[in-house]
Amino acid sequence: MLKLYSFGPAANSMKPLLTLYEKGTAFEGHRLNPATFEHHSDWFKAINPRGQVPALVDGDKVITESTVICEYLEDEHPSAVALRPADSYGRAQMRIWTKWVDEYFCWCVSTIGWHRYVGNMVKALSDEEFEAKVAAIPVVEQKVKWRRAREGFPQDMLDEEMRKIAFSVKRLNDHLADNEWLAGGMFSLADICNFAIANGMHYGFAELVNEADTPHLLRWTAQINERPAVKKMFAEVPMEKLRPQD
Amino acid sequence: MLKLYSFGPAANSMKPLLTLYEKGTAFEGHRLNPATFEHHSDWFKAINPRGQVPALVDGDKVITESTVICEYLEDEHPSAVALRPADSYGRAQMRIWTKWVDEYFCWCVSTIGWHRYVGNMVKALSDEEFEAKVAAIPVVEQKVKWRRAREGFPQDMLDEEMRKIAFSVKRLNDHLADNEWLAGGMFSLADICNFAIANGMHYGFAELVNEADTPHLLRWTAQINERPAVKKMFAEVPMEKLRPQD
Repeated sequence: MLKLYSFGPAANSMKPLLTLYEKGTAFEGHRLNPATFEHHSDWFKAINPRGQVPALVDGDKVITESTVICEYLEDEHPSAVALRPADSYGRAQMRIWTKWVDEYFCWCVSTIGWHRYVGNMVKALSDEEFEAKVAAIPVVEQKVKWRRAREGFPQDMLDEEMRKIAFSVKRLNDHLADNEWLAGGMFSLADICNFAIANGMHYGFAELVNEADTPHLLRWTAQINERPAVKKMFAEVPMEKLRPQD
Repeated sequence: MLKLYSFGPAANSMKPLLTLYEKGTAFEGHRLNPATFEHHSDWFKAINPRGQVPALVDGDKVITESTVICEYLEDEHPSAVALRPADSYGRAQMRIWTKWVDEYFCWCVSTIGWHRYVGNMVKALSDEEFEAKVAAIPVVEQKVKWRRAREGFPQDMLDEEMRKIAFSVKRLNDHLADNEWLAGGMFSLADICNFAIANGMHYGFAELVNEADTPHLLRWTAQINERPAVKKMFAEVPMEKLRPQD
């Protein structure tokens, strides 16, 4: 049976999780604990040497990178539920939206998330404990991000990320004003990958995502939250409890 | 007939160009002149509002984003030459490599390229001319990059990009030591998209890409340069002549 290693249903981990739930594909879920840095443990780095979730194990094959996993599930495990438009143009539009999440939207939201939540986690460690954690991280850029989270991200970086978030939610809202779904006239991986980042932003980013400024974005997230597969996923897969920065 | 708007055969423009040549798909090529900022002209922004090449026009449809165009060509215009592995796992590996170009490898090489070549182009302009050019650029992050090219990129940014380039060519070289091609045991879009960035680096980055340090990378670029489609592309599509920074 397929095995998915992930955190709870948010951000990159949500992408393959929701894809599997929507497709109705059976899988065995393994939830890692980010608070104990389990994704940097030796046992998990034997599965994904980059120490990153999600990772899908399919027989003797390991597939990494959340967006790639989603397309792999469509390629290798098609089900009655198709999450890619059948026409090439719709599929290209879907890929432009998933690529945009991976190259732009997820990064700005992620930095603010790290600033707010990861900082606490790592500030509670002694210098020695922290250095041991950093030594276990295989990706150089991730080491830098953990250090920044502990020291505090520079204010100009946080300001720039907030500018990008404002641009991103406006871009989504404008497109969703004229389109029920993001690409190809159907619920697709474009919606799943963007929803994985945008869901719940009316709590964490209420000054940018609200009924007055982004009504179409909120219509779309509400509509997705009503889908049976989404409800089932949230009911069955626990979300991490994060404590905001003091 | 398909129309491709692009610069000469390098970087992102080379990806769909070489894909079309390899597939033997007929197309009409429109080469834009980067030296006159033709990609920011109103006529081209009517085709791609982001003012970026390449862009493919297929009947009444416009497809943008170089990697997305390559997959679109495989989806919509299959030919006797397949550039995607037939098996899902090989295809996933191909996508991890094309994604890595778009998110990592192309950016570090691009910054150094801008530092060396674009600086000259924009330093020759008066302040007024330069501001008019910047006003025509639709993407905020691109405006910032043009300003940095004129003012000079900060040294710590250049150092960090060089570190990433060294990491990138080592990663390619290590993988190519044990593999003829990057993914799926065949020449694929993974090779095309990486070759588009890596070709010629033994000139511009000779301290990193050379027979002693990256023999497998050089074996692979030489092998690709011997392909009939690659020779035909370089013979038919002129390359821009760039003058290095003084």
